[in-house]
Amino acid sequence: MSRTPDARVRDTQTKQIQENITNVEKHFGELCQLFAAYVRKTARLRDKADLLVKEVRLYADTETPNLKIGLKNFADQLAKVQDYRQAEVERLEVKVIEPLKAYGNIVKTKREDLKLTQSARNREAKQMQQLERMRQRNPSDRQIISQAESELQRATMDATRTTRQLEETIDDFEMQKICDIKKIFGEYVTVEMAFHAKALEIYTTAYQHIQNVDEEGDLEVFRNSLHPPDYQSRLEIVRANSKLSLNRTGTSMSKSGTLQSGTSSRQRKRDEAEDDEEEEDEDDDDLEEVTDDEH
Amino acid sequence: MSRTPDARVRDTQTKQIQENITNVEKHFGELCQLFAAYVRKTARLRDKADLLVKEVRLYADTETPNLKIGLKNFADQLAKVQDYRQAEVERLEVKVIEPLKAYGNIVKTKREDLKLTQSARNREAKQMQQLERMRQRNPSDRQIISQAESELQRATMDATRTTRQLEETIDDFEMQKICDIKKIFGEYVTVEMAFHAKALEIYTTAYQHIQNVDEEGDLEVFRNSLHPPDYQSRLEIVRANSKLSLNRTGTSMSKSGTLQSGTSSRQRKRDEAEDDEEEEDEDDDDLEEVTDDEH
Repeated sequence: MSRTPDARVRDTQTKQIQENITNVEKHFGELCQLFAAYVRKTARLRDKADLLVKEVRLYADTETPNLKIGLKNFADQLAKVQDYRQAEVERLEVKVIEPLKAYGNIVKTKREDLKLTQSARNREAKQMQQLERMRQRNPSDRQIISQAESELQRATMDATRTTRQLEETIDDFEMQKICDIKKIFGEYVTVEMAFHAKALEIYTTAYQHIQNVDEEGDLEVFRNSLHPPDYQSRLEIVRANSKLSLNRTGTSMSKSGTLQSGTSSRQRKRDEAEDDEEEEDEDDDDLEEVTDDEH
Repeated sequence: MSRTPDARVRDTQTKQIQENITNVEKHFGELCQLFAAYVRKTARLRDKADLLVKEVRLYADTETPNLKIGLKNFADQLAKVQDYRQAEVERLEVKVIEPLKAYGNIVKTKREDLKLTQSARNREAKQMQQLERMRQRNPSDRQIISQAESELQRATMDATRTTRQLEETIDDFEMQKICDIKKIFGEYVTVEMAFHAKALEIYTTAYQHIQNVDEEGDLEVFRNSLHPPDYQSRLEIVRANSKLSLNRTGTSMSKSGTLQSGTSSRQRKRDEAEDDEEEEDEDDDDLEEVTDDEH
């Protein structure tokens, strides 16, 4: 009868270990699925940003030189951020999702260890019942009772031994679990930090590319594209022949004339080349190189 | 006849302005939609991370004290990142998507300006045809021809005036467009940078919370929860009665016994309180305060 409280303690212990294993199984499974969903959404965000990069490049091809270069450089930086987002996705899969997934098998082996212990304990309980029966049926047969007692003692020692083994296994499992949580969550944070740090660095460059766009230079190019070189002078001849011209349109004329005079022939040629590109609407590698040289 | 090349120049110009407006309409529309998609995916990512925060908190409630505190603090930081992601979403909507959307109306007014100019030009062309007709039908009627000439001159001046106005409007539009692109893309980068900088800062704290988890302390708590205080001593009595005990399980006994001895009664009490909480599985505010005091 002295063993019964211990058996009860061990049953509580077993129940506790079982709950512990089930708890880890449940929460590691949930965490795994939620991290996987987080990673999938990150990949979808990268996809959308990739489309944005593509569109910024398409738009850049239709724009005046400075804005075009600025937008192309901006798109390059935005694309770089997506490359790092892709790296983030891949690293989270390897360093967070895979280790969490691995707990499915780890938990399975712990359950088997628990089962071994439980059957040893069942044998002990059965042996205990048998001893009780012997004592009731043959209270004076010392030999039979002594034999049953020593069999119970063996079963108890066996149950105690596997319990100890289980305790050690569960001890290791618990230690491993805490260390793995620290490692996995630490990896998650490290991967995220690496991405955010890179993004911060790249966006700083992207910001400069956009802010450096010289709108005045582009506006000049734009004006020249609307006023072909010989248009202004011929218009003057028409105006000279007209009696009404000077009074009505003198002001806007001189304004536009002044802006016109600031244009060099180099800029005009560049502008014409620009127009050809717009019509072809192609991603010209040679032009990209010129772009790089200029900035 | 001297005006025809100018008219042709202006037709080219009009076509160019039209193409320019259509181009802005197309690309600003595309950019608007793609930025909106990017923002939507960012919001979905925030949603998934929110679920992750919730699950980490649920899991924390089932864990030993140090890991519980570490996980709760980690979840708080992860939640903070999502708050900043929400701010990112809202700011991108206001500072990027809305201004791009506004170009729908801006483009519409530019199209109307273009229409006004085109009708003035159509009137001029009609007047020119009429003059030609007069010259062919009544080549010697100086008065009729002179009248048609002055009407054409008026139409020409009117066309020239509205053309000038259009040029100025388009000039402003072009300048505004480049400045807006710089502003909108600049805002995009600024909003993203603010988020990444905050995330980097918060994850640094999150990392410390996770790495500071004392696994040895938790393991002790875990062991005590498996070995109730009086279990060990009673087991010793059982063992002393058994002839087989010392030979078979001496090693694992002494190991487990040593680890056991390191446990204070304070830790045991804390552990029991822990168990109660686990059973209730509630988000205890009082415990959260204790957590904050300790870290």
